[in-house]
Amino acid sequence: MKHTSINFKEKFSLFNDQWSQRVIAEMNDYQFKVVKLQGEFVWHNHSDTDEVFIVIKGEMEIEFRGGKVTLAEGEMYVVKKGVEHKPSAINECHALVIEPRGVINTGEVDSGLTAQNDVWV
Amino acid sequence: MKHTSINFKEKFSLFNDQWSQRVIAEMNDYQFKVVKLQGEFVWHNHSDTDEVFIVIKGEMEIEFRGGKVTLAEGEMYVVKKGVEHKPSAINECHALVIEPRGVINTGEVDSGLTAQNDVWV
Repeated sequence: MKHTSINFKEKFSLFNDQWSQRVIAEMNDYQFKVVKLQGEFVWHNHSDTDEVFIVIKGEMEIEFRGGKVTLAEGEMYVVKKGVEHKPSAINECHALVIEPRGVINTGEVDSGLTAQNDVWV
Repeated sequence: MKHTSINFKEKFSLFNDQWSQRVIAEMNDYQFKVVKLQGEFVWHNHSDTDEVFIVIKGEMEIEFRGGKVTLAEGEMYVVKKGVEHKPSAINECHALVIEPRGVINTGEVDSGLTAQNDVWV
């Protein structure tokens, strides 16, 4: 049996579109997804689950109703379930998102930024 | 409300013992743990869950019964549940481990390397 590591940089080199999450791995019923962020996303929340962001390259911000957090390369943050948040990035940021399979990127908000789910790269 | 990012390098600077996982975050019932690896761990498996390794610094190897995978910085691997594996590292490697809360690092193997669970840093 062949065992192959998953290289983040290589995965990011395989696509260019922003805000479009691509699945790179699954752990039980959770998915690891890579996403390129630039500009402002929409306010949304995930009523059923926490969501993890890990910055692989660049810098991003997550705004909350009454606060914000800046994530640099090598930093992570857990957005707790139900908490409204709005990710953004001035320059393109490469991030890893971890959450259960089936979570919609825009939560219950119907947006032009709603991405197709379960697309692997 | 104060929102603070979690910085991997800073977390690794706070302890020195190897093979001793420290929790840095929780996502639902999963834990994100930092661990310093050097030398050979014990053969073990986790019968109930997958386990994720992400290398933050250095290089590690995971040996399987009939194969192995090398993980460099910026690479991850999902050890599927029930699969026997033995992590190792020639030089000290800093890794992030993600798995459900309550998983014992040595599986069902009683070893001198069995770490105390749920220790935060």
